[in-house]
Amino acid sequence: MAPKITAKPPKGTRDIAPHAMAVRERAFSLITQVFRAHGAVAIDTPVFELRDVLQNKYGEDSKLIYHLSDDMSSETGEKLSLRYDLSVPFARYLASNNVSQIKRYHIGKVYRRDRPAMERGRFREFYQCDFDIAGAYPAMIPDAEVLVVMMQMFDTLAAQSESHQRLIGSYEIKISHRVILDAVLTVCGVPEDKLRTICSAVDKLDKMHWRDVRKEMVVEKGLQEEVADRIERFVSMRGTGPEVLHMLRQERELVDMCVDALNEMEKLFRLVACMREGMKNRLVFDMSLARGLDYYTGVIFEAVLVDKTVNLGSIGAGGRYDGLVGMFRRSGVPCVGCSLGIERIMNLMVKAAEEQGGGKIRATATDVLVATIGKGTMEERLRLCAELWRRGVAAEFCFNENWNVGKQVQQAVSGGVPLVAVVGEDELRDGVVKLKVLATKEERVVDRGGIAAAIDEELTKANESG
Amino acid sequence: MAPKITAKPPKGTRDIAPHAMAVRERAFSLITQVFRAHGAVAIDTPVFELRDVLQNKYGEDSKLIYHLSDDMSSETGEKLSLRYDLSVPFARYLASNNVSQIKRYHIGKVYRRDRPAMERGRFREFYQCDFDIAGAYPAMIPDAEVLVVMMQMFDTLAAQSESHQRLIGSYEIKISHRVILDAVLTVCGVPEDKLRTICSAVDKLDKMHWRDVRKEMVVEKGLQEEVADRIERFVSMRGTGPEVLHMLRQERELVDMCVDALNEMEKLFRLVACMREGMKNRLVFDMSLARGLDYYTGVIFEAVLVDKTVNLGSIGAGGRYDGLVGMFRRSGVPCVGCSLGIERIMNLMVKAAEEQGGGKIRATATDVLVATIGKGTMEERLRLCAELWRRGVAAEFCFNENWNVGKQVQQAVSGGVPLVAVVGEDELRDGVVKLKVLATKEERVVDRGGIAAAIDEELTKANESG
Repeated sequence: MAPKITAKPPKGTRDIAPHAMAVRERAFSLITQVFRAHGAVAIDTPVFELRDVLQNKYGEDSKLIYHLSDDMSSETGEKLSLRYDLSVPFARYLASNNVSQIKRYHIGKVYRRDRPAMERGRFREFYQCDFDIAGAYPAMIPDAEVLVVMMQMFDTLAAQSESHQRLIGSYEIKISHRVILDAVLTVCGVPEDKLRTICSAVDKLDKMHWRDVRKEMVVEKGLQEEVADRIERFVSMRGTGPEVLHMLRQERELVDMCVDALNEMEKLFRLVACMREGMKNRLVFDMSLARGLDYYTGVIFEAVLVDKTVNLGSIGAGGRYDGLVGMFRRSGVPCVGCSLGIERIMNLMVKAAEEQGGGKIRATATDVLVATIGKGTMEERLRLCAELWRRGVAAEFCFNENWNVGKQVQQAVSGGVPLVAVVGEDELRDGVVKLKVLATKEERVVDRGGIAAAIDEELTKANESG
Repeated sequence: MAPKITAKPPKGTRDIAPHAMAVRERAFSLITQVFRAHGAVAIDTPVFELRDVLQNKYGEDSKLIYHLSDDMSSETGEKLSLRYDLSVPFARYLASNNVSQIKRYHIGKVYRRDRPAMERGRFREFYQCDFDIAGAYPAMIPDAEVLVVMMQMFDTLAAQSESHQRLIGSYEIKISHRVILDAVLTVCGVPEDKLRTICSAVDKLDKMHWRDVRKEMVVEKGLQEEVADRIERFVSMRGTGPEVLHMLRQERELVDMCVDALNEMEKLFRLVACMREGMKNRLVFDMSLARGLDYYTGVIFEAVLVDKTVNLGSIGAGGRYDGLVGMFRRSGVPCVGCSLGIERIMNLMVKAAEEQGGGKIRATATDVLVATIGKGTMEERLRLCAELWRRGVAAEFCFNENWNVGKQVQQAVSGGVPLVAVVGEDELRDGVVKLKVLATKEERVVDRGGIAAAIDEELTKANESG
């Protein structure tokens, strides 16, 4: 026997099995409906980009970018790398295609040569699902719509069942503003050249205690102790929009530095409230939020699950980035957008679907299994299936010619197919089909011409009772 | 001003703009419905695989595989490459996950470092769309279903409009059998060690004249002239299944060598006919079909458009490959499947959609644009939009606070949005909304609570008349 090749997916990647794919496709379709309800269009960009397009955008994480072998580019002179997210390719798209206004979504795979932690949903290949609004508009209006889209996505996914509600329904969105955070740090006495690195330290407050973050600021990053202590009071501010705005507006020096940004936040909370009237608002103004990426310039936000038993971290994030497109073309385009932590959400969606289905998830959409009685009746199976396909019914048959009806029905049972249509010699002679409902064990005899309608009827009944 | 980075997609790849994406998503959804109507499940596999998994599967085309930089794998020792098709990853999937029976589809991107010819639909990154049945079953039953699925896909895409019918409806599927072709070549006198290379020469008959193929066989590949001349008679055989089978069965020596394969083909034509009763069969038994790839072991087929004004070549292909999974695990799994030439089909779908829409394709799915009259009414826009979103209506609004109603309506017109809902001071006071139908210029005043129902009504009317 010939030696076999090791057959496994590369480290940090995985195959998606049919039951998980069924959940994923359903979730993508729900999410896409939300995007399209807001008038968004879809675009697609290549999975690899010119290396220069991707470099110097991700701070320290640039080392996680996958490069293609340079031998591959000898003939074109192009050096290529796999995309790290969908935001930089989006900015590149706007520049390449000279687009200055668009509301778009993009669902696609991205690549990070990170240390994989599969059980916690950290992969080297994973999906991102982004919604962005590009264009120069009055302050905070697109920003408010992005936040509402994010809430509607979570609401829609949570509404699928009680299990979904319990697992996904407890989200909240922490929100802050880069300009306010920079002003806070400046007012506290952080020198300008330390702003970004101290900002990165603040960003760790969701995973680390203040005393450890303080230590990082003072010991590692050389900040004066009294400056660090002044920061603590600010980054502890947390509450509704009006509450935190009230606290911040007590600080005269701060207000002088960022009055526009404070007014923007006030407007943002008001606009979001208009769109969420009668619904939970879910926005928390949280001054400890900093967001790692360099390119944010205005509002920043991050969605988390409040339920601490689901220890998942962020399930979505975003913000305003007005400078990114300007790295690719003369006149920049202001942008704001969000990205879903889709792999983490998928883990929850699979768990919820399993609960809902009593531990089982159906991977197929088959309505009916067509079975025949008697030897040499394969062609009758095919004829009836084809009649059903033509009428838009999802129908399967067994490939094994000599299976008896019992074995054929068994295939329906194990595949979760709800109905079986049986034809034998008698049914063929009389021009009828026997239709079995597996859940109730009811049987009825239907005229062959009316079989598609009878199947529709039984499926509707089953959905109503189930 | 800082120097800008060249912002373009890598050679041989391209961005997909919103109007083309709208066509693509619609086509994928129609194709997926056909797959699911046959009880197929979806799987996903990574875009890169271990290099060994991909190598030695594609004959001469192995040089077209993209490799990732080996520096990327220093820490894991893994050498990685981008997938070249979806068939080899499917075989690897079956082996890795120990699956021996599955009917699956997979829509995903593949990569070939080929010479790009964008205008003819040859790209370095492109989608494939595969449907395969794996499992040991009685002869030709899964093969027949794969062929019927392929025909149903083309039928479904063609049924979208008269333009679609004209551009895609003229397909035919050429079919042959590797075992019969090998027997033909052997009977003609081709030595065993030249079988594959002569087979490759035969494969070029759809693009080259017989005299040039003959020259390649004799001059380049050293075949005796009289052997080549004997081949000509066979590869000219073309017709319905029964016609060509009748011709082949006149050849005593050939029948002795491949009687099983001839009987298989007879069965296959009969099974497909059962499923296509009352519909065009579209199958042509064509002995000049050879298919380049090494891994086919039984039936082979290729879909082409008969309309020669659309000079596109193959728009889909497939066959039986019983040996591929055995390269990854001890016990092989017989497989048969098809792959759509989706990029070429997409070009036709875009052309058809443009014809249908009078040169325009709508990229959004927005039902209604919400407009307000008067300064400072942005919040009313948001309120009404949010009410509509909650009721499942796709609604947009203008971000510009001070645009008058005329400018707002103009945004609806240029985006192809069919309806505009207007609220001004009077409407707010009276609790009503003015609903404008842009196509007919009709207006009606609707109670605010009944707005979603009124929109549904108008959309149904518009669909019926349009």
